[in-house]
Amino acid sequence: MSSYGERLDQVCAARGTLCAGVDPHPGLLAAWGLENSAAGLERFSRSLVEALGERLAVIKPQSAFFESFGSAGIAVLERLLADIRDAGALSILDVKRGDIGSTMSAYAQAYLADGAPLAADAITVSPYLGFGSLQPAFDQALRYGRGVYVLARTSNSEGGQVQLAQSEGLAVAQQIVDQAAAANESSGQSAIGLVVGGTHQSLGCDVSGFNGSILVPGIGAQGGRMSDLPTLFGAAFSRVLPMVGRDLLGAGADQNALRDKATQLLESVAEATQHDS
Amino acid sequence: MSSYGERLDQVCAARGTLCAGVDPHPGLLAAWGLENSAAGLERFSRSLVEALGERLAVIKPQSAFFESFGSAGIAVLERLLADIRDAGALSILDVKRGDIGSTMSAYAQAYLADGAPLAADAITVSPYLGFGSLQPAFDQALRYGRGVYVLARTSNSEGGQVQLAQSEGLAVAQQIVDQAAAANESSGQSAIGLVVGGTHQSLGCDVSGFNGSILVPGIGAQGGRMSDLPTLFGAAFSRVLPMVGRDLLGAGADQNALRDKATQLLESVAEATQHDS
Repeated sequence: MSSYGERLDQVCAARGTLCAGVDPHPGLLAAWGLENSAAGLERFSRSLVEALGERLAVIKPQSAFFESFGSAGIAVLERLLADIRDAGALSILDVKRGDIGSTMSAYAQAYLADGAPLAADAITVSPYLGFGSLQPAFDQALRYGRGVYVLARTSNSEGGQVQLAQSEGLAVAQQIVDQAAAANESSGQSAIGLVVGGTHQSLGCDVSGFNGSILVPGIGAQGGRMSDLPTLFGAAFSRVLPMVGRDLLGAGADQNALRDKATQLLESVAEATQHDS
Repeated sequence: MSSYGERLDQVCAARGTLCAGVDPHPGLLAAWGLENSAAGLERFSRSLVEALGERLAVIKPQSAFFESFGSAGIAVLERLLADIRDAGALSILDVKRGDIGSTMSAYAQAYLADGAPLAADAITVSPYLGFGSLQPAFDQALRYGRGVYVLARTSNSEGGQVQLAQSEGLAVAQQIVDQAAAANESSGQSAIGLVVGGTHQSLGCDVSGFNGSILVPGIGAQGGRMSDLPTLFGAAFSRVLPMVGRDLLGAGADQNALRDKATQLLESVAEATQHDS
């Protein structure tokens, strides 16, 4: 069985290193001419995979927009995850779960176990209850060749309150980075990734020696620029998986427009990479 | 419209101040003679509300155990929330969500808006992205007379890494407590509560002046004792909503055994309260 890190490397080598964030908020559905309902969400999801599923390496649905339609929305999410898999892309389901004990195990079972209705290739998790509380997710990811992205330093301005607070002389974000690196080192896989926003002037944590994937939101609408990433991430730039959301889906429901925008974004990643090497 | 704080006070005055945590993990379903499936989960949920729904003030389902069955599990959760409402109890849906911007708004819409399939009387949220990032949930709660419990100091041993880290001379947990209190003061309602574990020798944060509900997990199986709560919470004890999970549901599927156990737990709350006054 391939590890998550190996699978990610393969699909990025073939398709380019880019993750599409899928945040179907009511305004986006309206812009696509769709109603704000589970049926609208379903049409949106299917169009999206049809346009981009065989072209992009990674697609990241945001669970909140499916949860807001209850079980009908979750049924759409199940289908979307299956469609992404069938199109040969990897899915990162953005759920930001974080809990303890049997509850964390249940989340791991829900999203990282073979055969689970909502199984994704990777999920995001939130470490407010401590890095160690996430262990059931790490165990399940290693078992099934899946991945877990831990929030370290997020793209929003309010995040510093918690993420830059210090204990034992280190910022919380840095502790998360270091513990994730140590866990990957120990497992010999790169099942654990990080979420580090691309909007900051400086990251506030040192990821230069990190040994897993770094998912970088905040590019485009939130103000981060693809061309700044090599400088911002330095030696870790080769680990960066840039995520674009509104910039891509804002191109509208037209499949050709979406594909053109994706091509343009892939070129901007390639340019940043060339500039870096 | 009554505020969440008013509704909580009313139901606790009538039924006693106790919250039942509903964590239907596979072992619990097996102990109740039920299969580990959405159908087993449905039978469990209906039996539980039948036995305790008209007796207890608050019931707190843990979303993870429903999510692990995908849309079928979420359909069970929708029905459970409706059944709790029909039985006259309040629901706190334990989802520990936390995100930013339009995503946080979508979570608020999913769980705190009238008419949403998964609307609960209150939810739990996680502040790793900063207290301010949770504002859309606070806004929605105020609008609809619902509540939001923010994780401050959790019951698990790994939580201190983040929650006791310091910035500007204050522990993160203390900042959360203070910001929640200020927001309640400003709104004139008690829509914002806290989650503070009952397992610690000392809380690690000062909640003595808090002006909302304090949900306290960790009683029973995790080692916290009801009789210790008046000392542990001091002046804030009257704000405490103690939560029992395994101690109650471990009484088994027999409805009389469940009711007897609930009566016994309500007596231990009453004793702690008398001892305190």
